[in-house]
Amino acid sequence: MRSWIEIPPDSDFGIENIPLGIFRHPAYGPRAATAIGPYLADLAALHELRYFEELHLPDGIFEEPTLNAFMALGQPAWRALRQRLQELFDADKGGSLRNYPDSRAEVFYPLRGVEMLMPVQIPNYTDFYASETHATNVGIMLRGKENALMPNWKHLPVAYHGRASSIVVSGVPVRRPWGQVKGADDPAPVYTPTRSLDFELEVGLVIGTGNKLGTQISTGEAENHIFGLLLFNDWSARDIQGWEYQPLGPFLGKNFASSVSPWLISPDALAPFRTEGPMQDPAVLPYLQFEGARHFDIQLEVLIQGPGMEEVSICRSNTQHLYWNMAQMIAHHTVNGCNLQTGDLLASGTISGPEEGSFGSMLEITWRGAKPLRLPDGSERRFLQDGDTVILRGWAEKEGIRIGMGEVRTEILPALP
Amino acid sequence: MRSWIEIPPDSDFGIENIPLGIFRHPAYGPRAATAIGPYLADLAALHELRYFEELHLPDGIFEEPTLNAFMALGQPAWRALRQRLQELFDADKGGSLRNYPDSRAEVFYPLRGVEMLMPVQIPNYTDFYASETHATNVGIMLRGKENALMPNWKHLPVAYHGRASSIVVSGVPVRRPWGQVKGADDPAPVYTPTRSLDFELEVGLVIGTGNKLGTQISTGEAENHIFGLLLFNDWSARDIQGWEYQPLGPFLGKNFASSVSPWLISPDALAPFRTEGPMQDPAVLPYLQFEGARHFDIQLEVLIQGPGMEEVSICRSNTQHLYWNMAQMIAHHTVNGCNLQTGDLLASGTISGPEEGSFGSMLEITWRGAKPLRLPDGSERRFLQDGDTVILRGWAEKEGIRIGMGEVRTEILPALP
Repeated sequence: MRSWIEIPPDSDFGIENIPLGIFRHPAYGPRAATAIGPYLADLAALHELRYFEELHLPDGIFEEPTLNAFMALGQPAWRALRQRLQELFDADKGGSLRNYPDSRAEVFYPLRGVEMLMPVQIPNYTDFYASETHATNVGIMLRGKENALMPNWKHLPVAYHGRASSIVVSGVPVRRPWGQVKGADDPAPVYTPTRSLDFELEVGLVIGTGNKLGTQISTGEAENHIFGLLLFNDWSARDIQGWEYQPLGPFLGKNFASSVSPWLISPDALAPFRTEGPMQDPAVLPYLQFEGARHFDIQLEVLIQGPGMEEVSICRSNTQHLYWNMAQMIAHHTVNGCNLQTGDLLASGTISGPEEGSFGSMLEITWRGAKPLRLPDGSERRFLQDGDTVILRGWAEKEGIRIGMGEVRTEILPALP
Repeated sequence: MRSWIEIPPDSDFGIENIPLGIFRHPAYGPRAATAIGPYLADLAALHELRYFEELHLPDGIFEEPTLNAFMALGQPAWRALRQRLQELFDADKGGSLRNYPDSRAEVFYPLRGVEMLMPVQIPNYTDFYASETHATNVGIMLRGKENALMPNWKHLPVAYHGRASSIVVSGVPVRRPWGQVKGADDPAPVYTPTRSLDFELEVGLVIGTGNKLGTQISTGEAENHIFGLLLFNDWSARDIQGWEYQPLGPFLGKNFASSVSPWLISPDALAPFRTEGPMQDPAVLPYLQFEGARHFDIQLEVLIQGPGMEEVSICRSNTQHLYWNMAQMIAHHTVNGCNLQTGDLLASGTISGPEEGSFGSMLEITWRGAKPLRLPDGSERRFLQDGDTVILRGWAEKEGIRIGMGEVRTEILPALP
């Protein structure tokens, strides 16, 4: 496939991608969109211009504040839209938009300068813990090398419920949280802005269609429920988390904010980048077994930009480093009959690769502050500072095809006085 | 106050109560209602008949599938409605409904036989762990007497995020979940229906109006955000929970279902039952300090009914046994800027009193199965069996005033084949 739109080779959004998101239309407010090369295409405008007539979509479906209503239509509708958009952008198709300059003027906007909004209303958010290196690194810091991985870790994809209300989109700044902290030598806890604010490099999947309470989704069926993938920064206050998390898990150390990238990338776009995951040993229980290549080869990068600094790369990782795949996460989540809902977000947990340089959090990069990170301006970071901007990027690339996930970019504001 | 409606003295719903809920109208579907003595009063009908004219409520506000839209109007609207309903039911007020038999026929239904629905759409659900006896009992079983309470427990109200999607209303049966379980002597985990299905006796508060992300709610302001209280049964599969919960907390052992009572009881109705809580020692940090009597004296009971059996009481407890009060829960939840939303549910955690007979879960009543519970038909329970019905009840009572919370009643269905 080749588009009549000029697309730079390093663009995240070639004709094979067709991500979906929500942008703020200057006159009409939130509307659904796709991205193609350097342009955003307004799906509500295309709908009004009758380019989707054969899809028989409900009126107004692309003028909702989120994609949820469209997602609830199910996989056939998602695939039909994707195919139709590719036709409209295809240089070799008669039905392409190329020949209708009037329509083009109504539909396309330069991506630069468009405000992207939360693409999804998220009813429930679950965070997994699916990278073996990350779980091992954290385990070593907390419990030592001998007991780094808990006995359950290779038998089930460990997960916990996170906070849905405080998930924000790329561009929304995040404020350093206050909380209770107690150092090992403190006689009592103190109330302070966190001193160990951290990011976590994650990928999230968004559920398009769920299951009824009391029913299960098998690993074979699981991927049909996935609407799209996005980048996910699971902000963490390590000192608050360390004091509060026993015995029921993370709470205020996490729920002050998480940040998502604005574009949802369909599993169909990522199909050429399917790959085998790591050997799972010991063998998993039958409900977690699966067929085929269920991992994806998506490259990930974290950059940091201090005030007045250039962006500097501090981590290169890959979704291949996950031990558990998305089909297993969904099958496990529903094995007890738990119902997933349209818009639910399932995040991977921090994706750290096996080597230094591929660790997906400051906690691991600086080994809890023991090995500070030196930035080009000579400053050091044990954890994140006010005014720092953290950028996560993701893309899959081979044989001239590049499927980009865009980025999630967040500036850190100082704590409330 | 005295109503012209005949209200038996043991009724949960005297004129001082005025709970709010959602019922299924035979012709019109979900509608908001209150309960008065043995009757349900249809708020949408009262609105149409112009009994709420001076409240200036939006049209259709009581024809929504949940109370959320009304809740979002804020405390002045909640209080105005409460006062107006009391006037309409008051024997000594001229504006009372007593004199309008035509209206009465359109408004009142016998409570018995009405189907109550989920009163609230719950965007986020948080479960606390606020009873000292419960936390101690569980701690002794898991870690022994010396380390029963974690070091953080008396410094902050420990909590974790639960699953909002699987919360169901009284009357909806709950299916025994499948899951991964590993006994201490098992060489590997097995896949099985849970063998230790349990209830947890809790009270939940529902947030009426929330706060913006990045802002805090003080203990002094906190109660103004509470729309109502309800009974909450936090179903638990102890064996699934025991194997999965390290290190990130409960997940599939809890998220297969939780059950709520259908009526929301306003803090104003419970004001006569305010009481001092336990002395908090060590002193808490300033953001958790509070003024006034912030606990409530609400009596709680759990009953169990095996197939073909009478209901039998197995626990009597009281919300006074909570160490942390609701104002502290809300202040802690938002101290890091976490945003609460209209409809959010904050549950107390299991409310166990200090003596045997007041323990709020089978885990504690039978001490992990070591002391089986003998039922009147001669059968024994270590945990719950298929076909058992569990009933939670709550009420506050003194000087002739009784504020009942109704009940949450749930039958256990066998696991999927």
